[in-house]
Amino acid sequence: MKKITLAKHSGFCFGVKMAVDKALKEAQKSDNVVMLGDIVHNEHVIKKIDEAGVKVITELSDKNPGTLLLRAHGTVPEVYAEAKKLGYKIVDASCPLVLEIHEFARRLEEDGYKVVIIGDYGHDEVIGISGHVKNSIIISKPEDVEQKIPSRVKRLGIVVQSTQNIENAQKIVCKLMVLCREMKYYDTICKPTKLYQAEIRTMPKENDVIIIAGSFTSANTKRLTEISRSLNPNSYQVECGDDVKKEWFDNAESIGITAGASTPNWIIDQVINRIRHIIEE
Amino acid sequence: MKKITLAKHSGFCFGVKMAVDKALKEAQKSDNVVMLGDIVHNEHVIKKIDEAGVKVITELSDKNPGTLLLRAHGTVPEVYAEAKKLGYKIVDASCPLVLEIHEFARRLEEDGYKVVIIGDYGHDEVIGISGHVKNSIIISKPEDVEQKIPSRVKRLGIVVQSTQNIENAQKIVCKLMVLCREMKYYDTICKPTKLYQAEIRTMPKENDVIIIAGSFTSANTKRLTEISRSLNPNSYQVECGDDVKKEWFDNAESIGITAGASTPNWIIDQVINRIRHIIEE
Repeated sequence: MKKITLAKHSGFCFGVKMAVDKALKEAQKSDNVVMLGDIVHNEHVIKKIDEAGVKVITELSDKNPGTLLLRAHGTVPEVYAEAKKLGYKIVDASCPLVLEIHEFARRLEEDGYKVVIIGDYGHDEVIGISGHVKNSIIISKPEDVEQKIPSRVKRLGIVVQSTQNIENAQKIVCKLMVLCREMKYYDTICKPTKLYQAEIRTMPKENDVIIIAGSFTSANTKRLTEISRSLNPNSYQVECGDDVKKEWFDNAESIGITAGASTPNWIIDQVINRIRHIIEE
Repeated sequence: MKKITLAKHSGFCFGVKMAVDKALKEAQKSDNVVMLGDIVHNEHVIKKIDEAGVKVITELSDKNPGTLLLRAHGTVPEVYAEAKKLGYKIVDASCPLVLEIHEFARRLEEDGYKVVIIGDYGHDEVIGISGHVKNSIIISKPEDVEQKIPSRVKRLGIVVQSTQNIENAQKIVCKLMVLCREMKYYDTICKPTKLYQAEIRTMPKENDVIIIAGSFTSANTKRLTEISRSLNPNSYQVECGDDVKKEWFDNAESIGITAGASTPNWIIDQVINRIRHIIEE
């Protein structure tokens, strides 16, 4: 009898849930709700929001401004200012924990620290954070530290993308601490991320196969997959039930399942059902 | 022809040199100069200071108080206060970099941080630093972090013993950064220590044998020996020229020499001469 275990902590975090709820609620109130980009990094959620009538736009416009929904990853201040000027009604669906990171970064800069953001290059959340300070240095990988900070800095102030890999942040901080006289660090990796990552550091050792449900565009899901794969090569990321392959389970007695913070429950259920169907065949 | 290389940075650091110079100067001015313990952790220096007439005492006294020389490692505030009350003339030979650590620790506590001192249990400098704050946690080893800080703390403020092993401090900080919301870290490992340690991380790879000159009571010398031995098993610590053994050099073509911050030049010269004598025999 093959055993299936779903991670205790997986799927929608409260920030994503709140953003999706806000979007659906606004769509009911008005047929002119827009967003600058996708609400979260998951195709199924994007489709649902699109079907509810919320439109994705690429830039703000003074023609018929409606409700502007600011997405879960947070936004640069210029968007708030321009939207206000153009007459949009702003509904801020930024994750409150991300807004806190903006505040920490601003405070560090005001206090004279050179701001370092540990986060993925080009990620919406990281771009958002860096927009809230005048000058920041973004560092994704420990190998990049020397190039990004070629000489000693007096004061470094550090914040971290909410869904970063803790071990990656530790390696970067280790290098930063010997590059400055004074370092101030805010542990801004969010609690859901910590819980998900803690489980994905034990589950792959306790199960023969690990399935990670989530979009390939989702950085936090990708991170779960990477951690899992480093501990158990039989780790597979899937976007939905159809991606699950029969041969993965041929020699498996125990199967662990987790999901990224932007993966909705109905996808997790679909994946579990598909696995059950396969192993009961 | 065997090659001998002396480390670019070795022997007396400026803090030790200043303390020794102050002691000898005071001994010329008065025959009632006392210290609470040894001036630095080196028998040869202690002997020289003793011969100059400076006495080591175990406690302050109101009988015939003379000049009290405060040692290089720094002192708790109570000693300053009591010595003043009893009528001593205080000559502070504390390393200025250590006095700076006291100041950082006090500032962290005032600003609401729980103070952590990364340093050797029982070391004079560490005891001195902890005496300057009301409550501190001393951590020597990464393995002790969980026991010393069993649950999450809001704000951790960290200073480091001036002669700590940088890699040890990095491992401890790595663990501390995920145990708090906010961490403030002062890189108080002194420049001489950094220079000595940087060289002892390359020299053992470039030489067949490494000789480290310094007392076995000196924490910073012991640290150089440990680092060297981890990179080259043919690493030997000696207190003086007489400790050097002929058989160490039998198969050696290149010999590297370094010395702790409390090792005087005349001992380094003695060790080099003894090695020269052996290999030229």
